[in-house]
Amino acid sequence: MRIAFSTLVILILYGTACQNKQVSGIQQIFPNGEPAPVEYFTGRAFNLGLVPNDSIYNTVVGNVYFEPGARSNWHTHPAGQILIITDGVGYHQIKGAPRQTIRKGDVVKCPPNVMHWHGASIDTGLQQIYILPNTEKGIVQWMHPVSDEEYNNVK
Amino acid sequence: MRIAFSTLVILILYGTACQNKQVSGIQQIFPNGEPAPVEYFTGRAFNLGLVPNDSIYNTVVGNVYFEPGARSNWHTHPAGQILIITDGVGYHQIKGAPRQTIRKGDVVKCPPNVMHWHGASIDTGLQQIYILPNTEKGIVQWMHPVSDEEYNNVK
Repeated sequence: MRIAFSTLVILILYGTACQNKQVSGIQQIFPNGEPAPVEYFTGRAFNLGLVPNDSIYNTVVGNVYFEPGARSNWHTHPAGQILIITDGVGYHQIKGAPRQTIRKGDVVKCPPNVMHWHGASIDTGLQQIYILPNTEKGIVQWMHPVSDEEYNNVK
Repeated sequence: MRIAFSTLVILILYGTACQNKQVSGIQQIFPNGEPAPVEYFTGRAFNLGLVPNDSIYNTVVGNVYFEPGARSNWHTHPAGQILIITDGVGYHQIKGAPRQTIRKGDVVKCPPNVMHWHGASIDTGLQQIYILPNTEKGIVQWMHPVSDEEYNNVK
């Protein structure tokens, strides 16, 4: 009976370790890249450029990993932005609209010249691919940080 | 002793099942979507539209899952194409250039009006996000299938 019990304990421990590897970590498609500039981000975020700007595609693509609690400043894109969430949980908010929870598989659009911010949730990081189209119109205009009240959705 | 042996067997079986879930399957960010049109694809591929065409972003985004052996026909994009490989192994070939092996984390660009094809490798499927920029110039021109000799890189 003692052996049967220890077997059960081993199986539970083993199962937990196995599950953690699959479920709790954030899946990574790309390496983290460079720390995102502290003047435009709160908390720790990492940016990896995937497609630099040029006059053939007029499109910038990259990946940002936000650690839990990290978020961008408020900002606008002169030609808008498309976000593809590849793993984790985060928030996206367009100025004047409610904060939106975003998850793996979600696609978020922010129209040209509209203020928005995005980042990870409090508990879980966020992996997002960003697409900036029509870059001949410009790329980004950075603004002020997202306050803790805005981030925490305090009414 | 019989109990200890059966414990070992259970642990090995359990470990194998656990590992298979993490390693052998192709990671999926999105559901498969619709079967890709048989007139433009060889083998089984699935397309999920993520961003439809409009005059604000002028960008079409989607995800294709190619089963092992599946590939697109030869085709061109009037404004070019950007592929982001999110899992698996596949091939990309620009007309006149060698067939290129593409893997999770790779970014592939095909310039405007240049013939190319893409698909999975023989043994492993491919998950790819496609970005079509500047869609005011057009989206895609489909051509003839990729022959088995072309697919298998027979010189």
